[in-house]
Amino acid sequence: MERAARIEAAGGHVIHMEVGQPAAPAPTTAREAARRALDHGRIGYTTALGIPSLRARIARHYGDTYGVDLDPGRVVVTTGSSSGFLLTFLAQFEPGDRVAIANPGYPPYRHILTALGCEPVLIETDAASRWVITPEALIEAHRRTPLKGVLVASPANPTGTMMRPEALAELVHTAEEHGIRFISDEIYHGLDYAFPASTAAAISPHATIIHSFSKYFCMTGWRVGWMVMPQPLVRAVERLQQNLMISVPTLSQIAAEAAFDGASEMEGVKHGYEENRLILTQGLPLAGLPEFLPVDGAFYLYADVSRFTDDSAAFARRLLDEAHVAATPGVDFDPHRGHHYLRLSYAGAPAEMRVAVERIGAFLRKG
Amino acid sequence: MERAARIEAAGGHVIHMEVGQPAAPAPTTAREAARRALDHGRIGYTTALGIPSLRARIARHYGDTYGVDLDPGRVVVTTGSSSGFLLTFLAQFEPGDRVAIANPGYPPYRHILTALGCEPVLIETDAASRWVITPEALIEAHRRTPLKGVLVASPANPTGTMMRPEALAELVHTAEEHGIRFISDEIYHGLDYAFPASTAAAISPHATIIHSFSKYFCMTGWRVGWMVMPQPLVRAVERLQQNLMISVPTLSQIAAEAAFDGASEMEGVKHGYEENRLILTQGLPLAGLPEFLPVDGAFYLYADVSRFTDDSAAFARRLLDEAHVAATPGVDFDPHRGHHYLRLSYAGAPAEMRVAVERIGAFLRKG
Repeated sequence: MERAARIEAAGGHVIHMEVGQPAAPAPTTAREAARRALDHGRIGYTTALGIPSLRARIARHYGDTYGVDLDPGRVVVTTGSSSGFLLTFLAQFEPGDRVAIANPGYPPYRHILTALGCEPVLIETDAASRWVITPEALIEAHRRTPLKGVLVASPANPTGTMMRPEALAELVHTAEEHGIRFISDEIYHGLDYAFPASTAAAISPHATIIHSFSKYFCMTGWRVGWMVMPQPLVRAVERLQQNLMISVPTLSQIAAEAAFDGASEMEGVKHGYEENRLILTQGLPLAGLPEFLPVDGAFYLYADVSRFTDDSAAFARRLLDEAHVAATPGVDFDPHRGHHYLRLSYAGAPAEMRVAVERIGAFLRKG
Repeated sequence: MERAARIEAAGGHVIHMEVGQPAAPAPTTAREAARRALDHGRIGYTTALGIPSLRARIARHYGDTYGVDLDPGRVVVTTGSSSGFLLTFLAQFEPGDRVAIANPGYPPYRHILTALGCEPVLIETDAASRWVITPEALIEAHRRTPLKGVLVASPANPTGTMMRPEALAELVHTAEEHGIRFISDEIYHGLDYAFPASTAAAISPHATIIHSFSKYFCMTGWRVGWMVMPQPLVRAVERLQQNLMISVPTLSQIAAEAAFDGASEMEGVKHGYEENRLILTQGLPLAGLPEFLPVDGAFYLYADVSRFTDDSAAFARRLLDEAHVAATPGVDFDPHRGHHYLRLSYAGAPAEMRVAVERIGAFLRKG
């Protein structure tokens, strides 16, 4: 990012495919609601679990989207998905507990677990399993040393791959049969292109769902998300949130509730990602980059660059310096095989994606 | 709070002296800045340590207020003081570490420490020491089992007492001589009436300062605060914040920077508290409640009700039911002697304080 800033300061035009956030603003409805709240007066604390009407609106979303009848009492508003992870780990795990996560994966999973004294257990994923944790791999890891939890994401970061509905259901059931708590990171739900994303909330009342307004609703900097908790854990999470955070930013909660009314605007943003996805999946093979993981959802394409390099960090630096395309090296997400991968974010504008394909093509041809 | 809501639903008028937050809104300058940011477009993530201009503005505040020349590089913006405690505890302590705190004190101190596997060590305070931890008490606790840290607040919650400048300086030096990390909760700075509050940042570069926009700047629901960290710990806190929170709510950071320009408005709010303080300190003894701790700062009066009850929770319920005055029983803050105390918050309007004194007087006369 610093390198990109230097190029831009020198007048260069960098295409930013390294960032994990949408370029679009929050829905107009959300911004209007925040503005009205500002006119209204004091922005005080809310109850620890969140504004009741927002919790009810989120519960309704599960009916509308997945046909799941969800008790609003199980919904906990959080300060982004980040504080959701913190709260659910603290509520469910003790220091020393082992929690399985997929490799490659989102680095804060292992860093938050480690900060809390838990042990992240990386389970390698590959093309054979469509880059997700399989029931067999979970059982195998559990037999080596017992697991207390497993955390999966679909769509996933950095891969952009999704779990097929039956794969998710099987994994949830396998985890529960073995007494392993299931946590489903559904932050990229809504941004599904290959097939509809399914929620663990429809599979088991014992699964924890982590979600956020950051991605689909383009509200990264607002820091507001939610969890669907197993009923018996709600009270523990309430006490933790009360003591560790007091409450979630009030203006963000008010805006989040109104964001649901801006879904048509967000569908327009999603159509932009779909266009970007087509430009990349059709253009990159012609540009000389034919190998990437299934581009199912979110706004990430995880490209195999092993035919060009054994050092994705150096490769990303050269791509930025010579082609002015910023991408994230896979080593940020996968300490083992990441030196052969590059994550490209397509949350930007379609015109930029076309230029990116051209630049990547010229860069690869130059060698 | 539920009981108060029921009385109000039935048409009763409750005076709220149980709440720990100002009744006034954020400064106009802060709300205007938030409004402008909303007009501007996307509210994205910021860097993990906070918006650079806000960090610089906070550093300048230390020059303006305390005459301390502070490196902005030591300032870390946080999601309220709450996340400041979480981050500084994670950065400085390991599970099993013992950290001294004053009793009575703010309950989340011990709850956050416990959630992270640390051991809070309650040091009893009393009138002889002006209700603060003395160097002697700290050394005594340290000799029993070594302490890794000590956390003090001045002005303090629930007592409203402050540490005299020399008492704070002596305690900081004593802690450092014994290798005990010093954390100073200065969230109520700005709300000092008896004498000017002094900052630990002026005493030692190794102390950690926790602060917030919630109290003086009336920005509770915005969830934005800051820390001044010892230089060698900044990088660790940056990595923790990046992984545990990503960044602090952006709109709140923008508003916070502008809040400093609204200090004259906030001085008006403070004058209201000063009027309230006079009404209570003069009125309560005449109303039959003559015993309370030094009412130095914040907006709390900690009253000794031992001549009326051995059960402050039941006493607070009766005060609410019969006099419609809501107060917080001391047991929330002091598991040992709290049944003899009541915390009265005077963050409300002066007219309400006068009525409160009358009602408390009538209640006590009735017996």
